[in-house]
This record gives sequence, C-alpha cells and structure tokens, in this order.
Amino acid sequence: MEEKILLAHGSGGKLSHELLTKTVVNRLSNPFLDRMDDSAVLDIRGRMAFTTDSYVVSPIFFPGGDIGKLAVCGTVNDLSMAGAVPLYLSLSLILEEGFPLSDLEKIVFSIRKTADEAGVKIVTGDTKVVNRGMADKIFINTSGVGEVPEGVDISGSYARPGDAIILSGTIGDHGIALLGTREGLEFRTSLQSDCAPLNVLVKEILETSKNVHALRDPTRGGLAGTLCEFARNSRVGIRIEEAKIPVGREVQAVCELMGFDPLYVANEGKLVAAVAPKDAEKVLQKMRSNRYGAEARIIGEVVGEHPLRVVMKTRLGTSRIVEMLMGELLPRIC
Amino acid sequence: MEEKILLAHGSGGKLSHELLTKTVVNRLSNPFLDRMDDSAVLDIRGRMAFTTDSYVVSPIFFPGGDIGKLAVCGTVNDLSMAGAVPLYLSLSLILEEGFPLSDLEKIVFSIRKTADEAGVKIVTGDTKVVNRGMADKIFINTSGVGEVPEGVDISGSYARPGDAIILSGTIGDHGIALLGTREGLEFRTSLQSDCAPLNVLVKEILETSKNVHALRDPTRGGLAGTLCEFARNSRVGIRIEEAKIPVGREVQAVCELMGFDPLYVANEGKLVAAVAPKDAEKVLQKMRSNRYGAEARIIGEVVGEHPLRVVMKTRLGTSRIVEMLMGELLPRIC
Repeated sequence: MEEKILLAHGSGGKLSHELLTKTVVNRLSNPFLDRMDDSAVLDIRGRMAFTTDSYVVSPIFFPGGDIGKLAVCGTVNDLSMAGAVPLYLSLSLILEEGFPLSDLEKIVFSIRKTADEAGVKIVTGDTKVVNRGMADKIFINTSGVGEVPEGVDISGSYARPGDAIILSGTIGDHGIALLGTREGLEFRTSLQSDCAPLNVLVKEILETSKNVHALRDPTRGGLAGTLCEFARNSRVGIRIEEAKIPVGREVQAVCELMGFDPLYVANEGKLVAAVAPKDAEKVLQKMRSNRYGAEARIIGEVVGEHPLRVVMKTRLGTSRIVEMLMGELLPRIC
Repeated sequence: MEEKILLAHGSGGKLSHELLTKTVVNRLSNPFLDRMDDSAVLDIRGRMAFTTDSYVVSPIFFPGGDIGKLAVCGTVNDLSMAGAVPLYLSLSLILEEGFPLSDLEKIVFSIRKTADEAGVKIVTGDTKVVNRGMADKIFINTSGVGEVPEGVDISGSYARPGDAIILSGTIGDHGIALLGTREGLEFRTSLQSDCAPLNVLVKEILETSKNVHALRDPTRGGLAGTLCEFARNSRVGIRIEEAKIPVGREVQAVCELMGFDPLYVANEGKLVAAVAPKDAEKVLQKMRSNRYGAEARIIGEVVGEHPLRVVMKTRLGTSRIVEMLMGELLPRIC
C-alpha cells in the first residue's frame, strides 16, 4: 500500500520526527541541519542578501523540473540578482493530508540535486500538514541568505541611460512548458522548462565587469514585467527591439495558437542585465560561454527619454508601449 | 461590494504591484522593503541565526491573536531560542482566490504591530494567489535572521545533568484557545492564546546568566515534545514534577472534559530553559519580572540517569514516562 502523508506527520510528535529525519533531514544532511534546532547558526561576513519565495506551481512535476527544483532555483536566482553569492536556504513544506510519500521523496531528491549544483545548503526547515482539500498537494517556501561581495551594489533601481539591456536567452519556455502539461490542452510539445540556478552565470558576469547596474530574473510577469520594473524603479526609459528577442520555435507557435504574448510568459532560468555600454560586449561574450547564457543577446538600451516607459520597436518597424501585465495569463506557474 | 483577492493579484503584473504597494509594503514600510528588489541587502555582524516557519492556523483570527501575529511571534521566538537577537523577517503569503482584502489588511496590521513590539523589520516578501479551493484562505511563511551575541552558544543538544528546567508560565493556552473557537464545540471560554514575542525575555535571561544551555518554545507537540527533544538531542534524562507545572483553570477544565493532556497542547508564548543549577534561581527571578515570564517555575531537572527519557512524578506520587505525542491532537494550531 502506498504510504501517504497523515495529519499526524505535522503534529510535532513522533511521526513528525520520523518523517523529518528519514525523508528530509537524512537526504539534505549537513552539520547545520543535522542539529535539528529551530534555527541554524551561520557565519556570514559583511553584507548579506535575504530573500523569500513560496512555490505553488501546478502541476508539481513538469517537463524540465518539479516544484523542488523550482523552489531552489527561484530563491538562488533572487539572491544572485542582488549580486550575492547564495549560501544557505531554508525549506518549509505545507503538505496536504494524503500526499504520497513517494512524491515527497522525489521532490526532496530534486531539492538536494539542485542545491548541490548551485552549491547551497538547506540549513533549517519546517513541515506543516493541512487536512485534505485545504491545500493543493504541496506548497514549498524557500528563503535564502547569501554574501554580497565587497564592492558589489546592484539593484533594479540602478539602471542608467546608455546601459545595454542584455537578455540571457529565449523567453517563455517555463510558462509554455507548464501550459503544455495541463489537462485539457490539445497540444503536446517537447518543450522543457528553462528552470536553472543562475548563480554561476552571475558570478562570471560580475567578475567580467564592475559596471553591471541592474540584474533581474524575468519570472512572473515575464520580460515585460522585469523591464517595466527597471524603468519604474530606476526612473528611466527603456527601448527594446522585438527582432532581437530570442523566442523558441515551439514557444512562438504555442503563443500564436493561444493568443499569448511571449513577453509576458514566465521564465525560471533567464536573467536581464543593465550594463554600462563599454562593458556590454565583453559581458555578452562571457555569458555565451556559460550553458545558461549560450543564447544571450543585447535586446535594447536604457534611455533618458520617456522615463518610466518601455517602448518596443516591433518587427513591422512600428513602436509599441510595453505595459505590465494586466489580469492573469497563466496562474500558478511558480 | 467587498474587495476580494483575484488570481491576477498573483500574476506579477499591474494588480500584483498595486496589492503589494498599497496593502503590504506601505504598511510595513522600511528602507530595505521599500526598494522592492527581490532580495534585501542587510548588514549582519558575526554569527547569524536563520529560521523559517509556515503558518496554516485555523481559524485565522482567534482569541489573543491571528495568523499574522502568530507568524511574527513564532519566527521571532525560534530565533530567540538560538540565543539570537531577531532583526529581520521575510513575509511570504499564499492567498486563496476570493480572500477578503479587508482580512488581509487586518492581518498585515497585526504583523506590523507585532513586528514593532519585537523590534524586527519585514525586509523582503512574496505573494502567491491560488485558485479557489486550492488553499484555505491564507497561509503565511516568515523566515528570520538575527545576530547571535559574542559568547552565546545555546542548543537543544546542550542540556547537562544538574541543569534546572525552567518553564516560563502556564501551558496549553494557545491550543485550547484555538479549540474553543472551532465550530461545533459546545464550550465557550474566556481563554486567550498566549501568542507573544519572547525576544526581550530571552535577552534578559542571557544578560542574567552565562550558563543557559538550552532554550526552546514548546509549540506543536507541547511541553512533552520539547522535553523529549532536549533529552534525545542532549542524550540526557529529564525529571519533572506534575505538581510544579502551571496549568490555567480553564485549560485544565477543557482538557479534562475533552480527554487531552496539557503536556501535549501547543503554546506560542512560552519557553523552556535548561540552566546550570547555580544560576537557576536568579534566572527565575529575572523571568518573573517580565510580563511574559511572570508565572515562571522550576519544574524539574536534567539527570544523568535514564538518558533519552523524560520521567514525570505525578500528583499521585507515581512515576510516568513522558513520550512524544503519537498521532495528532489538534491539527492546524500554528
């Protein structure tokens, strides 16, 4: 008989302890976590980046990843976008009563594998169980801390006129891969989520240039959302060219079929950088040598005109104002 | 018409931004959060404590608190139990589509008020919205970081034979207060949850004695769970006396009526300390001068005999082995 999560696994008693040690702590083992205190005590020197994200993606297993991989990548990437070296993650699980233990094991395995790739440790955690029907299978929160190297100061509010806007690769892969797996949809693609930890790519970028002003991963809200945030927070204008934005053939096809604009579709393994023009080319070349930046392109620039606005030159040669997403395109993509 | 949470509030687009700025960021405002980057960049000196907890309490408003107050207290207390000074919290919300905006506002207000009392700042956050029926109203994750003062080294694995076991007050108040509010129960009490931030109490304890070995807040699993953890993690025996454990009159009455053992009922504003015997009395006196420790008592001691076991001398004079909770007493009390 398949083992399932019981309410008692969240009781703080014997079953909680067994679940935690066997299924979680043993597999993520490290000296901080193994102490099983309520807090981990860590050595952090100087400036520290701190971030949090809850993951409610549906389905929890999708082409190119699962909720566990996503939960590590998303938080590693948020730390990286502050220019930080991600070091330690927390892991908090909300489980629905009846959730198969074997699925939890797969997810914990995936968390471990992704954390190893990114070079981060899961040092503290929490597990809650809610009654059947009160949550959808599993929700995961990861929070993370990292060290910001001396001299690094990056923010979505630091983009400056003249900066090149560099995008690390194709857009829309994550959102469309998820869409493809959802019930009731009549297309099948070989498309995979781009879900990936970008900390090494960011490290290489920051070693190449001291003039990286802003970094962000265009997740929910897509590339459009990220560029609008740069424009608003930095009080600058941004100009991009549609023809320079890489979109995969399948993503393009599905977007046309479904009436989506890839600019608004979520990514989980891409970044956008605003870089001083003199360093743009060398940053681009460095990015292309990393597998997660192989298709990087300069897609536009920061301008002094039309502050707070993102304007795109379309393939037809016309100009279009790019707004933030209004409404909801694809719920629960992360 | 009452405003409700829409899926689009979690889209990463315009509505997400409006909800965040108006309802959350403006009310929790501080220079770290106001930057609205994906990570906060903080200055931390020396050793840092890091913890996480997700809160799924039901009902979300209860006598003596709500899910917002609980989410701040729980994480502040977990940091405090590592001997840390809590400084910064993250706040991640999972909202069910249709959740009333006015309830969210009340909860954010409560978060702000409790954070102010505890002297911590909410510096980074995240909001997700799931379809109606896919979560129960609101789940909150708070993670926290704090500084561990020089020379402080406290862990559930450091209890030593001879240590006095000090309990900061009555047990069972939180769990029984919640029970009293749940539907279908035929009793009404004036009982309130003990939900409170304990960081000042811990600071005072640590200023009074350098010989505090272990601290923990007996939440899920109750006092029994915490003592069993001390015994297991420190590989010691623990002896307590039932007659010395303070239990409120109403909690006692409800427990008798319902067949609960208050040892297993959750607390959210209590702590248990293992303190070297020579300092026990002065720590106790100091605790009693703090409103959250006014009813503190020495309830037993750590012993070299029967390692890993907690033994209680009952009111009848017999001895009883106290085990961890088996099964689930009250789901979703935190």
